[in-house]
Amino acid sequence: MGSIGSLTAQKLTSQFPQNTLEPEEFRRQGHLMIDFLADYYRKVENYPVRSQVSPGYLREILPESAPYNPESLETILQDVQTKIIPGITHWQSPNFFAYFPSSGSTAGFLGEMLSTGFNVVGFNWISSPAATELENVVTDWLGKMLQLPKSFLFSGGGGGVLQGTTCEAMLSTLVAARDKSLRQHGIESIGRLVVYCSDQTHCALQKAAKIAGINPKNIRSIRTSKSSTFQLCPKLLDSAISSDIQNGLIPLYLCVTIGTTSSTAVDPLAPLSQVGKKYELWVHVDAAYAGSACICPEFRHFLDGVENVNSFSLNAHKWFLTTLDCCCLWVTDPSALIKALSTNPEYLKNSATESNKVVDYKDWQIMLSRRFRALKLWFVLRSYGLGQLREFIRGHVEMAKYFEELVTKDQRFEVVVPRHFSMVCFRISLSTVISNGKKSEDVNEINRKLLESVNGSGQVFVSHALLGGVYVIRFAIGATLTYYRHINAAWKVVQDHAGVVLER
Amino acid sequence: MGSIGSLTAQKLTSQFPQNTLEPEEFRRQGHLMIDFLADYYRKVENYPVRSQVSPGYLREILPESAPYNPESLETILQDVQTKIIPGITHWQSPNFFAYFPSSGSTAGFLGEMLSTGFNVVGFNWISSPAATELENVVTDWLGKMLQLPKSFLFSGGGGGVLQGTTCEAMLSTLVAARDKSLRQHGIESIGRLVVYCSDQTHCALQKAAKIAGINPKNIRSIRTSKSSTFQLCPKLLDSAISSDIQNGLIPLYLCVTIGTTSSTAVDPLAPLSQVGKKYELWVHVDAAYAGSACICPEFRHFLDGVENVNSFSLNAHKWFLTTLDCCCLWVTDPSALIKALSTNPEYLKNSATESNKVVDYKDWQIMLSRRFRALKLWFVLRSYGLGQLREFIRGHVEMAKYFEELVTKDQRFEVVVPRHFSMVCFRISLSTVISNGKKSEDVNEINRKLLESVNGSGQVFVSHALLGGVYVIRFAIGATLTYYRHINAAWKVVQDHAGVVLER
Repeated sequence: MGSIGSLTAQKLTSQFPQNTLEPEEFRRQGHLMIDFLADYYRKVENYPVRSQVSPGYLREILPESAPYNPESLETILQDVQTKIIPGITHWQSPNFFAYFPSSGSTAGFLGEMLSTGFNVVGFNWISSPAATELENVVTDWLGKMLQLPKSFLFSGGGGGVLQGTTCEAMLSTLVAARDKSLRQHGIESIGRLVVYCSDQTHCALQKAAKIAGINPKNIRSIRTSKSSTFQLCPKLLDSAISSDIQNGLIPLYLCVTIGTTSSTAVDPLAPLSQVGKKYELWVHVDAAYAGSACICPEFRHFLDGVENVNSFSLNAHKWFLTTLDCCCLWVTDPSALIKALSTNPEYLKNSATESNKVVDYKDWQIMLSRRFRALKLWFVLRSYGLGQLREFIRGHVEMAKYFEELVTKDQRFEVVVPRHFSMVCFRISLSTVISNGKKSEDVNEINRKLLESVNGSGQVFVSHALLGGVYVIRFAIGATLTYYRHINAAWKVVQDHAGVVLER
Repeated sequence: MGSIGSLTAQKLTSQFPQNTLEPEEFRRQGHLMIDFLADYYRKVENYPVRSQVSPGYLREILPESAPYNPESLETILQDVQTKIIPGITHWQSPNFFAYFPSSGSTAGFLGEMLSTGFNVVGFNWISSPAATELENVVTDWLGKMLQLPKSFLFSGGGGGVLQGTTCEAMLSTLVAARDKSLRQHGIESIGRLVVYCSDQTHCALQKAAKIAGINPKNIRSIRTSKSSTFQLCPKLLDSAISSDIQNGLIPLYLCVTIGTTSSTAVDPLAPLSQVGKKYELWVHVDAAYAGSACICPEFRHFLDGVENVNSFSLNAHKWFLTTLDCCCLWVTDPSALIKALSTNPEYLKNSATESNKVVDYKDWQIMLSRRFRALKLWFVLRSYGLGQLREFIRGHVEMAKYFEELVTKDQRFEVVVPRHFSMVCFRISLSTVISNGKKSEDVNEINRKLLESVNGSGQVFVSHALLGGVYVIRFAIGATLTYYRHINAAWKVVQDHAGVVLER
């Protein structure tokens, strides 16, 4: 062993001067980063909430190639401060009211840190049993908090999985439904499968359907209107399906939305699920944003009818204090997912899988490799508990009511659709536009200018939607650091900019 | 404003006693977690590397429901120590030699922390310009380190994107290729599209093809053999394609692997890419594990021919110090991806997108929402630099050579296939089995027992593959904390268990 012995003596490590995971250096740098982030949260409300940089700003100030020699954390953090932060749109700013929130929390952050620290690749049970089993436990916990029927829980023959985003949840369930149907109708019938949704359904569904090979002509986006507050109408759905059947097509999948992106409209789940049952559709409920609210008894009625659907998803990374990404998906029939998504290569075979006593989550989702997402949800559920999580949701809903009052008291504005949760859709009203000597057809353009003007100030970030042709400003409350003073200040900004826009 | 004023005064925050992102509490708890993880890395080699728990262990020791009241971080961390860690298979342990590594590093961890802290949802440019632009920059940086042709860089009309896993990269490119072909041949021709790979290609390809609606009968898994070291043969490929064309099918997509999962075989890219060109296939190169090695000049020749392919991916979360997940995908024609994967709902419209001066990465991948993954890769590239990253790779390759020597010196064992990178495939040889009075047909079973015995000890974790019917033990070096002493100890464990297994 001569040569080998001397090799061992010389090269104790494979690595350059210091191991890149040396614990004491990890500790030192980790503490630096925690302080950097704590300071960031302290300062975040002072930054322009929507980044004010121009396209290409970063390439101009960064080198053309990676360095050959190492750089210190201190140098890199200085660049984060001076070069990256100006290009960040600050989702954690209390002045962020755009899109839907990504409400961070200390518990969610810590759970993610721990998951990153373990850095396990939990594709199947044996690759880290705790990653799978904790996911079984927390999806059951959250399912119970939402009062999902037992059929969605592991204890009731169904089960939950933590995926990346709603897009993945839709694609997984759609492929499960598709393959179930193709087993019945033959593989060549893929061109006849039809997917149903409303014109308010999130675009992720169209994307998922296209990825799954559904003919784009067979995506029925059923029209909604202001008179029915942009809900999907069960009668229209029923007649669309029966007309498709008459035309030789095969109804496959229905997506029902609880809290649409444009206006937080709530599709009537109970009657829609009955239509789904009648035609044996796979019914998926997308409650990406509003699902979180359903842990409060006063919102739970929106889920009535969920006992008749096949799958249900919500994004804990939106309004549930769990950092991106964490889409919670529950299904009543895991075997449908598994049949469509399983792989069983020799190099992953193991006795636990063969015992049939374990869940291998790689077969419940699009991706094979997967992060240990259950930790962050577990941290959130335990650190805050059901009681405080309800108060968190209710606090934002109260804030939204308060904002709605503010809008209503200023007669230049109107609230365009009923508010259900923590988002208010408003605009400068048509009568205000006319009384300010503008043309009525300019009302959308004037509101668009108001939005641009507000966002351009960097003081507030809001986004927009078109509802039945009406341009509305969406004011979505949910950033964790938002206090009432931010709502007041935001409204003052909107009022001031409206004054300027109307005077132009 | 009376009632509103008093409301404001009373309820400064929406939240229960303390805001869940209050900076000083974040700081306190963050420091606790850093210390917890630094201590974990200090102790990790003492834990059984493959978890020794039984199915269902966790449900038995956790409550049936989430708590109503908050619990402290200290309580939760105690449970992590006593209930979660026993169920972890420790991928960061220096004794982990299974699958392919997930090599963590302080820099990768810190980049992930920062991304989690910002918690931006970077679906398009405006949602956080820095997230998009840094991704443009670092994928160009890494592309240059790999000497990818300019056509894969943003500066050359192509570009890179950081996705979750190889499965997503394969699915994205496959859907791009599929839609390109369907535009030419008509949507109803989906059933005639054919995907080519070898029997060594990662199962992610089969999965991606099924998800994309490719007829499972049209996935050509071309046979490889030991005599050609499990490489995909260009001649066999060519004749499979021409026979498909004769049968009225449409050749679509070829996956070439640089470093297969079972044995790190390297498909001959140059001649295969010529076959791809001849038949106008979309050629994708999957270099999930071995791609990282190609930043070293001595390994770069494995990529010769890449100038003729459409897309190339590697997982920085495998052997490149970047925590899960971070699959780097480069394409020469981003518009093909965008045509297949773009969505353009009103609520995401913005002037930056309309200016056509920015990248909206939601149109380059399956998911819409996306994490700020570029930060961690940027941290890794800068913290270590090209020079040390090469040394990191070479260190593991040297270790694997050393391990190979150890195996070769013990005449009971044999190395089954040539070693290219940092993995050695070995087994107890047939002659050893026979000379120990066993039947020759038991050779696979004996090696399987050896693997079970070694893994059951908790001292080492290795995995296996079947290569042309031969059961081999895969010894994959790449855990960041692995030193030569761990290789020596691991080999001693294998030797001892082999002795016992052979004596039984």
